[in-house]
Amino acid sequence: MISHLLTSHTQKIETSLVRELLHYSQQPDVLSLAGGLPDEKYMPAYPSLDVLADSRQYGPSEGEIRLREQVVSIVADRGLSTVADDVLITTGSQQGLDIISRLILDGDSTILTEQPTYLAACQVFSLQGATIHDVASDAQGMSLEALRQAIDAHHPKALYLIPNFQNPAGHCYSLQRRREIAALLDEKGILLIEDDPYRDLCYEQVDLTPICSLLKTAPWLYLGSFSKVLWPGVRTGYSVSCPAFSPYLVKVKQAIDLHTNRLGQEMVSYFLSSGGFPAHLVTLKEVYKHKRDVMAQALSSELGDLVTFALPAGGMFFWLRLPDGVSSTLVLEEALRENVLVLPGVPFFPSESPLKDSFLRLSFARVSLDDINKAVAVLAGVIKRLLTK
Amino acid sequence: MISHLLTSHTQKIETSLVRELLHYSQQPDVLSLAGGLPDEKYMPAYPSLDVLADSRQYGPSEGEIRLREQVVSIVADRGLSTVADDVLITTGSQQGLDIISRLILDGDSTILTEQPTYLAACQVFSLQGATIHDVASDAQGMSLEALRQAIDAHHPKALYLIPNFQNPAGHCYSLQRRREIAALLDEKGILLIEDDPYRDLCYEQVDLTPICSLLKTAPWLYLGSFSKVLWPGVRTGYSVSCPAFSPYLVKVKQAIDLHTNRLGQEMVSYFLSSGGFPAHLVTLKEVYKHKRDVMAQALSSELGDLVTFALPAGGMFFWLRLPDGVSSTLVLEEALRENVLVLPGVPFFPSESPLKDSFLRLSFARVSLDDINKAVAVLAGVIKRLLTK
Repeated sequence: MISHLLTSHTQKIETSLVRELLHYSQQPDVLSLAGGLPDEKYMPAYPSLDVLADSRQYGPSEGEIRLREQVVSIVADRGLSTVADDVLITTGSQQGLDIISRLILDGDSTILTEQPTYLAACQVFSLQGATIHDVASDAQGMSLEALRQAIDAHHPKALYLIPNFQNPAGHCYSLQRRREIAALLDEKGILLIEDDPYRDLCYEQVDLTPICSLLKTAPWLYLGSFSKVLWPGVRTGYSVSCPAFSPYLVKVKQAIDLHTNRLGQEMVSYFLSSGGFPAHLVTLKEVYKHKRDVMAQALSSELGDLVTFALPAGGMFFWLRLPDGVSSTLVLEEALRENVLVLPGVPFFPSESPLKDSFLRLSFARVSLDDINKAVAVLAGVIKRLLTK
Repeated sequence: MISHLLTSHTQKIETSLVRELLHYSQQPDVLSLAGGLPDEKYMPAYPSLDVLADSRQYGPSEGEIRLREQVVSIVADRGLSTVADDVLITTGSQQGLDIISRLILDGDSTILTEQPTYLAACQVFSLQGATIHDVASDAQGMSLEALRQAIDAHHPKALYLIPNFQNPAGHCYSLQRRREIAALLDEKGILLIEDDPYRDLCYEQVDLTPICSLLKTAPWLYLGSFSKVLWPGVRTGYSVSCPAFSPYLVKVKQAIDLHTNRLGQEMVSYFLSSGGFPAHLVTLKEVYKHKRDVMAQALSSELGDLVTFALPAGGMFFWLRLPDGVSSTLVLEEALRENVLVLPGVPFFPSESPLKDSFLRLSFARVSLDDINKAVAVLAGVIKRLLTK
């Protein structure tokens, strides 16, 4: 009845597998390793309303000036120099992806991503009708040669990267790879969209230099989030951009929802200013690192050489390569019969790939240590059974 | 440096006049009748965090189920029958406009609006590259004959209406006109997007039947807001749609920002359930009606027959027709020299019109009674001076 009204891009909107699975993950007897949710047991309490500035009236489209200045200081510590005028507060960093997509992508555009890549980024790129080409990566990050070839072949508008503790693959780029990619983007004049939501959840000594900070001439947009370390429910993230983009970003933001909710901005801003944030991060990192180690141990002892994975140096996810011939979708179905929910890698591959059905993304962030062991034991049983079929 | 990256639609993004004027309205010595802001003196205090459900974790893309059920009940009282599955909580009703635009509008689409119409709606329609055609209205609402001609001439995807206390013109549709428009949309199968943010600010006995509720077969989307009666800063609005649209709306919502901030939803939901909302509305209506009457009196006594306006039966705005030959843009400039800020009608006209520069939109909502009189006196002086030039 309404399909004739939809645009050619929105007629193709697919149901997100993650969204469908959410239904199961909310059942109390299901053990979920599928979502990307942080552990609410380690979320701070909201600051009292009494200490916050009044946030009831309409506010500025750019976001609260105090929070934008705090973001300037946060990204300066990361090596990225900016000013408050080039910071935009968004409804989570997801909205930053949408806003930049609105500005630059249409049915004639191509964007390059990692393979695999964050599925919800592909959703917004596709909503604009853009063509997505993914580029092969190794343990150091995106392959430079493959990137150069993809740029020459596809003339992309932009390159989308998650260099730190990538979702889903968990890799972290080497400093050398960061430098090489920056130099190539400068050479080709390609826009870099750098998504960096996991960097605060860092469990090893690794380089986290923003690639944006290494660019000399190429345009760039850097996306940050408080959702993984504070309260995702308040939907408060930010973008930082090269100055030329800023007036356009704020005009799109104004058009699409006027401004980000101010109460969440005040909550985040007050918490950041209260001095408790560094200690909170230390706790989070200890907790998540321990969960990561328990999951690594469980995967090794239960599945041994049957599966392959790298120990993620940060973030929330293991990216598990299944034995040849074992389908990730089948593992999902079988494990769900035993009340364990896992996420097949399929939706993280924008292009066809022979490996599409060969991975699971396992999140260790929100499950207890006991449940990690229980869930991995179920998973191991399922995989071994499928192998002998 | 980046203009080659922008899409053909975003290269044309214009600076919003309202946005530029905001800069002036924030100066403490400027008396502003320009914005659409409610009076924060009559906003309730936020409910205590202690009485709210925990909102820190990620939430559902559709919005909180309790708030969606409250919306079902609210719109049922207006005569619009729906279920929670067809309610989507949005980042203000502005985002509802954006989401429906994403779904149905592209560079090949046409949408019809009233003349004049809400300028920020035109911004989202234009962001999708759609062509906007405006249709003449009289005091009863959009002209039926002009609408029929526009449908036949332009084959629009949708009709966008603000039937109650329209922004900017303040008109309120008669019941007969509502019925006639609904019948015409059913006949032609045209989507109705009905925007209804002002209906609670109603100062006279007028019909407020949602036109959506009168449709038999045409598809529809109804947009509601809490921003004019509670706290605009928490950005919490909603859409209600015919069932066929709902799965698409929620998928776009999920793609663009995952979900609306939950803390704002909890605040609104708790306030609605606390029982204080009806009495709060009574107070708001008394306050705003009094301000409206004072402005009407001031305009009549200061400007007499020089200007034309209808007494708005609700909402926040007077739509003032200036004397022939007096430019609204010139009035803006001259009044600002005397620290009074008004909004010229220019940006509310999507198409060229000989009357484009002949109106002012004057908001009475946020100024004190004294300041209404002062501002109108300044305005009258400016208009009279310009007339004698």
